[in-house]
Amino acid sequence: MTAVNAATRAQVGLTKQSPAFWRVTIDNPPVNVMGPEMVRQFQGVINAIEADEQVRVVVFDSAVDDYFLNHSDFMARLEDLTSMPAGLTGLPPWPDFLVRLTRAPVASIALIRGRATGNGSELTLACDMSFASREKAIISQWEVGVGMVAGGGPMARLPQLIGRNRALEVLLSSEDITGEQAEAYGYVNRALPDGELDAFVEALATRIAKFDKWAIANTKRLVNTSLPPDVELGADWDACLASLGRPAAQNGIKALMARGFHKPWDVEDRLGYYLGQLAG
Amino acid sequence: MTAVNAATRAQVGLTKQSPAFWRVTIDNPPVNVMGPEMVRQFQGVINAIEADEQVRVVVFDSAVDDYFLNHSDFMARLEDLTSMPAGLTGLPPWPDFLVRLTRAPVASIALIRGRATGNGSELTLACDMSFASREKAIISQWEVGVGMVAGGGPMARLPQLIGRNRALEVLLSSEDITGEQAEAYGYVNRALPDGELDAFVEALATRIAKFDKWAIANTKRLVNTSLPPDVELGADWDACLASLGRPAAQNGIKALMARGFHKPWDVEDRLGYYLGQLAG
Amino acid sequence: MTAVNAATRAQVGLTKQSPAFWRVTIDNPPVNVMGPEMVRQFQGVINAIEADEQVRVVVFDSAVDDYFLNHSDFMARLEDLTSMPAGLTGLPPWPDFLVRLTRAPVASIALIRGRATGNGSELTLACDMSFASREKAIISQWEVGVGMVAGGGPMARLPQLIGRNRALEVLLSSEDITGEQAEAYGYVNRALPDGELDAFVEALATRIAKFDKWAIANTKRLVNTSLPPDVELGADWDACLASLGRPAAQNGIKALMARGFHKPWDVEDRLGYYLGQLAG
Repeated sequence: MTAVNAATRAQVGLTKQSPAFWRVTIDNPPVNVMGPEMVRQFQGVINAIEADEQVRVVVFDSAVDDYFLNHSDFMARLEDLTSMPAGLTGLPPWPDFLVRLTRAPVASIALIRGRATGNGSELTLACDMSFASREKAIISQWEVGVGMVAGGGPMARLPQLIGRNRALEVLLSSEDITGEQAEAYGYVNRALPDGELDAFVEALATRIAKFDKWAIANTKRLVNTSLPPDVELGADWDACLASLGRPAAQNGIKALMARGFHKPWDVEDRLGYYLGQLAG
Repeated sequence: MTAVNAATRAQVGLTKQSPAFWRVTIDNPPVNVMGPEMVRQFQGVINAIEADEQVRVVVFDSAVDDYFLNHSDFMARLEDLTSMPAGLTGLPPWPDFLVRLTRAPVASIALIRGRATGNGSELTLACDMSFASREKAIISQWEVGVGMVAGGGPMARLPQLIGRNRALEVLLSSEDITGEQAEAYGYVNRALPDGELDAFVEALATRIAKFDKWAIANTKRLVNTSLPPDVELGADWDACLASLGRPAAQNGIKALMARGFHKPWDVEDRLGYYLGQLAG
Repeated sequence: MTAVNAATRAQVGLTKQSPAFWRVTIDNPPVNVMGPEMVRQFQGVINAIEADEQVRVVVFDSAVDDYFLNHSDFMARLEDLTSMPAGLTGLPPWPDFLVRLTRAPVASIALIRGRATGNGSELTLACDMSFASREKAIISQWEVGVGMVAGGGPMARLPQLIGRNRALEVLLSSEDITGEQAEAYGYVNRALPDGELDAFVEALATRIAKFDKWAIANTKRLVNTSLPPDVELGADWDACLASLGRPAAQNGIKALMARGFHKPWDVEDRLGYYLGQLAG
């Protein structure tokens, strides 16, 4: 596994299992939060995917036990994120990455083991397919529970995927959702027994990696007429930043920090529960 | 519980469990049909929700055994409904209420026990979330079965929620749908054992009522980019009124009346079955 | 059963069970592939449906064991298809038929027993409802697996029906999907035990055929605001033709032919499996 950005530790590692089948592994222990450096490395990943003529399938997985990809790093300076230049779409780097991933001429697959909260859910929604561990996956958009608005597109994408009623339940309840419930809602393609998940994704990715790239790319291009306009991702991002400037979110995050947020412990494990304890 | 419109009996009662958590209870025994007075009271409800700065969650439920909210009152004079002034959206009062409820900056939840037919289904579709009794909920759009077209938006909303194929099955078959089938189709968020339904909704509403109103409102605002244009609700309403002027609907309603429609008895309980007996 | 086009054998037979309830039976043994003549007969079917004032329900089924409707006939000359005049919508005859079927003022129902691959899936997606044999239905879009792009609208229609993630799984994996999985994904309305399927569809069609045609037509007209623009069906068709001119598809089809494609044998039965063996 090699770092996308050689100057820093790889938080997002890129492995080429073959010229056609790449693996992107998220690796920021102990709880896989996403700070500015990880966002920068995701930019490197999408640049590499777009520039390559051989890659047909990219699997996103995690090297950190219990966490697929987690919420943002609230110990990092927000300015380090907001001062990053816009991406190719003109959007800020995180929504830019997500939009370009949906439009990239390859099949992208999220392999979800452990918690996919906030950014982890947003990455899932930007992938073409997602498969979750029945026992070990938790997916959530936790933002409203802490006084925030999500920034990576779930308001734009979830209603089309799971219906407006279930999208609003996910977003407004901010609850933890099991792999099984996520499958029932259509939030992920399927939830599989944990012991079968890796082999299933490996077989599917290997299969698609043998298919013709032109056929993959053009089929996906035509499916993408169903995507919400990119500008909606920008609107989500703007609302997220606005929410971070308000006392509700500042106080909510502070209260979570006091309870052990960002540490591999109870608050991260049972975030849905703790959000219900916070407010009021 | 207080009447929204003090001059008349409360068919739509508004209870403030707390400043942030309101309950709207439909109460027009014996079978919870919706006549012009109930429509007027729903206008009062939405005016109150929009004017209040504290309310974050509104639960819609029923005080009438076996009926959540039923079809329209065909004993009432149609002119009493059609002569009511347009609402704030410019639409007639019932679609106006439904559109404004989808856009209101609060979380709305339908708690469905008993029959949700016609208007009851339309209210469910206008709420942000819906939870149904597994044993005691029946949901349906019955209109085509009696020669009518539905007037409160299911043609606009159901295809996005449950897919075009299942939306057309619901609408063109006019069949009764159980809570379990409604959950499988995504028509409601979940069907719960009847004994657990009240506590589940109470806990969810209490949870969301503690979250920040600005975060709720802005998250919902961004989800609402997925709503069909309001004009589609107007088109549904116009087609409904047109259908009521045709012999097919007049004869269908008359035939149902002869069998005991509007009375707490077999026709109301098994409306799907009786629609199948009517025609031909 | 009478041939729509009397000059040739009926590959698409039209039976009027009653003036209001028609049955269209696909009958091109041994494996129900679709060649230019079948496309011409489908044009006859849609012309007849549009011209009739009595018909309210049309059921599509198959007279060929194990095949509902299969992929295109690659033994036929492509020119015989591409030289056919455009249909009423201005689209080529196959997408023209599919678009007009979605807009026809009748309820259309696919009764799926056996394989619905490529065109068979596309017909299903153009019908208003679909019911599949739990034991005997297989549905798939196989095109990417052979280096092609699908031509009859699944890129336009599947994301709205089953969500973008599951649509891309269906299309990019090119796998065989069982009736049960298709129901879980919402690809079909329901999967029923094979022994109950015919009676279920018969009862549903008989029921709707008794309802008022104006109410059926206007309800469907309003649901159809949710359809993707017809031009997307044209884009799918153009991409399909372009894919057929490329070596990947030519080689893929040739390799399948060498293994027994178009014959009632293992390759047609387990097409998903063989596509995985082909490439690479």
